[in-house]
Amino acid sequence: MKLEMICTGEEVLAGQIVDTNAAWLGNQLMDNGFEMHRRTTVGDRLTDLVDVFQERSTFADIILVNGGLGPTADDLSAQAMADAMGVELEENLAWRETLVLWAKERNVELNPKNLKQALLPKGAIVVDNPVGTACGFRVKLNRSWFFFTPGVPHEYKKMVIEQFIPFVKSQTNLQTKVEVTKLLSLGIGESDMAGRLEKLTWPEGITLGYRSYMPYLELKLIARDVSKEEQDKAILQATKVLGDGIVARNKGTLAAEIHELLTQREKTLTIAESLTGGEICSQLVAFSGSSHYLKHAIVAYCNEAKVALLDVSEQTILDQSEVSLACVAQMAAGAACTYSKVAESDFSIATSGIAGPAGGTVDNPVGTVVIAVKTGDQVVCQKIKFSAKRSRNHIRDLTTAIAFDMLRRAILGLSPIADYSYIERIESMVYSMKECRDLVTK
Amino acid sequence: MKLEMICTGEEVLAGQIVDTNAAWLGNQLMDNGFEMHRRTTVGDRLTDLVDVFQERSTFADIILVNGGLGPTADDLSAQAMADAMGVELEENLAWRETLVLWAKERNVELNPKNLKQALLPKGAIVVDNPVGTACGFRVKLNRSWFFFTPGVPHEYKKMVIEQFIPFVKSQTNLQTKVEVTKLLSLGIGESDMAGRLEKLTWPEGITLGYRSYMPYLELKLIARDVSKEEQDKAILQATKVLGDGIVARNKGTLAAEIHELLTQREKTLTIAESLTGGEICSQLVAFSGSSHYLKHAIVAYCNEAKVALLDVSEQTILDQSEVSLACVAQMAAGAACTYSKVAESDFSIATSGIAGPAGGTVDNPVGTVVIAVKTGDQVVCQKIKFSAKRSRNHIRDLTTAIAFDMLRRAILGLSPIADYSYIERIESMVYSMKECRDLVTK
Repeated sequence: MKLEMICTGEEVLAGQIVDTNAAWLGNQLMDNGFEMHRRTTVGDRLTDLVDVFQERSTFADIILVNGGLGPTADDLSAQAMADAMGVELEENLAWRETLVLWAKERNVELNPKNLKQALLPKGAIVVDNPVGTACGFRVKLNRSWFFFTPGVPHEYKKMVIEQFIPFVKSQTNLQTKVEVTKLLSLGIGESDMAGRLEKLTWPEGITLGYRSYMPYLELKLIARDVSKEEQDKAILQATKVLGDGIVARNKGTLAAEIHELLTQREKTLTIAESLTGGEICSQLVAFSGSSHYLKHAIVAYCNEAKVALLDVSEQTILDQSEVSLACVAQMAAGAACTYSKVAESDFSIATSGIAGPAGGTVDNPVGTVVIAVKTGDQVVCQKIKFSAKRSRNHIRDLTTAIAFDMLRRAILGLSPIADYSYIERIESMVYSMKECRDLVTK
Repeated sequence: MKLEMICTGEEVLAGQIVDTNAAWLGNQLMDNGFEMHRRTTVGDRLTDLVDVFQERSTFADIILVNGGLGPTADDLSAQAMADAMGVELEENLAWRETLVLWAKERNVELNPKNLKQALLPKGAIVVDNPVGTACGFRVKLNRSWFFFTPGVPHEYKKMVIEQFIPFVKSQTNLQTKVEVTKLLSLGIGESDMAGRLEKLTWPEGITLGYRSYMPYLELKLIARDVSKEEQDKAILQATKVLGDGIVARNKGTLAAEIHELLTQREKTLTIAESLTGGEICSQLVAFSGSSHYLKHAIVAYCNEAKVALLDVSEQTILDQSEVSLACVAQMAAGAACTYSKVAESDFSIATSGIAGPAGGTVDNPVGTVVIAVKTGDQVVCQKIKFSAKRSRNHIRDLTTAIAFDMLRRAILGLSPIADYSYIERIESMVYSMKECRDLVTK
């Protein structure tokens, strides 16, 4: 079965947005054992749309079309499909009802632009959009089923998962049972990982896939008709050869893993961020229920704030700078029991460093980062050095991920400091909470 | 002139990487007054490559092909082009020399895989790659010039800028001057905006484009051979009809606008976040130099932290809950002069609310948000209500954007509270800093 995608929109073609919908669909298909065959991106011109619909209709079995279902004049997907099929647009009464209801709920008046969204090629089958006003639909032309979805990512994704993938499955007699295990890795490059994994023998039916989304690299073990036991064996051998580099299983980010671990174990967390500037906290707050474990976070971006809000010793900063193990340890300790005004948290995380591009010194060039994790009565910290060629955001993202991994390991009772392939550790240290307090009062 | 792009590689098609090379080219072309006509993405199969080369060769004038020039077995672009043209591959002696020199410099031995990179379709014209071993080339088939570039981003970009764009220019006599003005909007829907703008008369040569990336909607005024005066008139009439909804010009986000305003005016900022959980701070810290104005941020996620770290009155929270104007005003005041341990900041922002999906109450259902901005001796705050159907992240993103806009308006000396089309305001209030302090001590 040949599956294709047609992406529409000047903004996608002209690069005003990066087409993440396209990559996302490729991944969804892979996870379900299907393969994308071709992707075509065109703008908003009616003739270009008609051309591409007619052309691909003789090659593909199923084509997902993304975008162009909105209310504005440049949303022409339905018109173009009607033209390609040689039929008229007609108003879909059920969808018109949906629109009328939608407007009523919001107490707004329906204008002709909104109502345009109920005009579909004659004979089209509606594909419900439970979260928006753009109506999805499908039609058949020549060899192909065309499946139309809106470009708005959350509407599109919901329709793909709930309706498109089941439709694809219904159109094939593929009986293969496909299961995908995703291993989240940190600090290993793709060629390094592939090199290690290709040396191993894999059970029949297992294929490997990689997805790179900084700072992570995800390894997919795609199992087609493979027994649970064989799958477990495959996962085990991958985990063994990749060591500390594998940081989670079937989780998209370490924040998701931390959220689950802290929730399950009913432990509390506090955060003190300098370099990462709120990113650690923000990634956790994205999850509903994070209020159960997250007490507070302090972004002490200037040194004055580190001293005033986190009780870091001024002398430490003068002697060793803010990019020192002693400073970040005191930040973690300070966050955990700020002014003793709040009860001490079970865990805390602290970060400091030079994200660049400016601000580097001889002792601490751009890319130098210190991270501390407070666990029980200990504060474990390390200083690492990223290549100065990495961008500011990349350095912040990597630091966030490593801080989460130190915390993850601490929660699991492992040593918080791990060895990652491409991350260079300069030094590490373990302080007791008492030592941190003593540093402050010195 | 019809310009197209062909992207090759399983990893691009299957979504293992997001194709940023494609978006980048679209932008480069637009900045140079050219337009991309179509983009086709295929995998690594030889037959698929041959098919797409032959097919597009009768439609396009110039086609940039990206990827598949490397040394490995799945790098088949040169072979596929030779097949499509019905010619043989032949070794390019000059490029072989380059490879020999490259190996010599690095003191490595050339293997057959490396030497494969000097095999080009017979008759191909070399396009120099000054930063890598993959040889670019161009050939003509039917109507089209095919221009081959490696997938490695920094090699690709160098070749596009230094060789592809000049080549495109040499093939056309296009003299059009294209200028794009981007107006960032907040709180206006796309159909609403289009409805207002389409009623106006636009100068010849001006076209409108929209780009939606939540929580923003960007309006582009694309001017082809339009005088500066006429462009300014067009911008003015768009700004007039969209009112408070236009929040920045030629900036991708309000965070970028705030970063510039605070930097230019040398004002300081502090932040107290509950609902947004570090996102406001994190968006600013993404910019290098934010340390010049950003003193600290406190994420007081639980009420205990609001009291302990921001001096919010316990009684206020008991009487009016943490989703109240009085609470968020005290948070802003508290952030600005935490414990008087740090000097009072010029501005501060505070947020609180119910992002959901859980946590709603009768008085404060999911989607209820309070935001305060401290400017000088005043704390201006408002309570707004988003649809509970919006996702947790969407509510946090919108809240972040509105908080930034209140701050932006305060910095510019405008009233911090603006009217946005689709955002419902429940109440608003202005406290003096003294009133906030009095609330605490009551």
